[in-house]
Amino acid sequence: MDLESSRTKLDRYPSRGSHDFATVAAILDEGFFCHVGFVKNGQPFVIPIGYGRKDRVLYIHGSAASRMLTEAGKGIPLCVTVTLVDGLVLARSAFHSSVNYRSVVILGTAEPVAADEKVAALKTITDHIVPGRWESLRPVKQEEVDQTTVLKLDIVEASAKVRTGPPVDDEEDYALPIWAGTLDLSAPVATPNPDKRLQPGVATPAHVTRYRRIKS
Amino acid sequence: MDLESSRTKLDRYPSRGSHDFATVAAILDEGFFCHVGFVKNGQPFVIPIGYGRKDRVLYIHGSAASRMLTEAGKGIPLCVTVTLVDGLVLARSAFHSSVNYRSVVILGTAEPVAADEKVAALKTITDHIVPGRWESLRPVKQEEVDQTTVLKLDIVEASAKVRTGPPVDDEEDYALPIWAGTLDLSAPVATPNPDKRLQPGVATPAHVTRYRRIKS
Repeated sequence: MDLESSRTKLDRYPSRGSHDFATVAAILDEGFFCHVGFVKNGQPFVIPIGYGRKDRVLYIHGSAASRMLTEAGKGIPLCVTVTLVDGLVLARSAFHSSVNYRSVVILGTAEPVAADEKVAALKTITDHIVPGRWESLRPVKQEEVDQTTVLKLDIVEASAKVRTGPPVDDEEDYALPIWAGTLDLSAPVATPNPDKRLQPGVATPAHVTRYRRIKS
Repeated sequence: MDLESSRTKLDRYPSRGSHDFATVAAILDEGFFCHVGFVKNGQPFVIPIGYGRKDRVLYIHGSAASRMLTEAGKGIPLCVTVTLVDGLVLARSAFHSSVNYRSVVILGTAEPVAADEKVAALKTITDHIVPGRWESLRPVKQEEVDQTTVLKLDIVEASAKVRTGPPVDDEEDYALPIWAGTLDLSAPVATPNPDKRLQPGVATPAHVTRYRRIKS
């Protein structure tokens, strides 16, 4: 319960919720794309973006010219949500139909990563999205680092929500001759598609051939 | 360009963006889970939830007791974002590494669907998530309709953003012996998992066996 606050307390289906860091971290590590919410002139914006996690810090990055990152890095309140959709829950009624998913909601303020920590943060993001990738890359140039904004958000106020299992129907509905169950959605299969300008003889590395998101 | 406004104008990579309704609709129809952003006491919240689209209206629904839906239905500014992740873009440098994705951002205010339109809206949502499902279900009860809040959001101010294709590296980096390309992520495969309490002899219907998201 170490990530709970009055704002991350769950009012709907609290039994499906958790404020446990290990639960939150496992969901964050299986995903790699988040939705960042921020407010500008009273209007919320929700922007999808890749991320990386290390310990209790979430990193996002983008162009230093990005309006969103500039806004989000001003210390304004943010909400970062990560959702993994595991399946569709087909109940015998519309009312009990649902979706099996795991999500994390993090509240907080982000701040720009200092210049001397930027490269380490970029490595964290790169290796979160494709584990093992960083080492194979052409080293970053200082001008690239300068053109990149990296934000960090501490994972201190967060919640996870998890719905699993079969439909839960009204007792009398189980007698109906209606197909019910779940449509389990597989984690996506990753197929390497080599660049047409690849140098001859470059083997496909293990971090590509063995790529998969690790389901906790 | 019919969905453009000063607020949905794209400042980053406008060449990847679109304000065309057909482009927006195709992405909305392939997806079924959105992230709804709203503001409460200055704090943004981003909540994942299923949705349905019909014409230029997006519907979301949930328990009438839901704090989120109650807030979101008050006519406050919302942002609804739908993201489909198609692949990882493995460039020869971290700087040019990216993600292939298609996303839609809709801005607007939602309002509760009137009582006499609720059932039609619930059918839209149900059949959006699992096409053909509604007809096979036990009919809805009035008490269930009463316990459900359905919100509608007009799709009038929106943008799509699409990144496709191989990495775009610095010209001199193409000579490096680094594997580059994309890791194309398949649409998830849906496996029917029948409920243990299914009545004997109930066949698995085509809307379950043939379930797939239609890629436009």
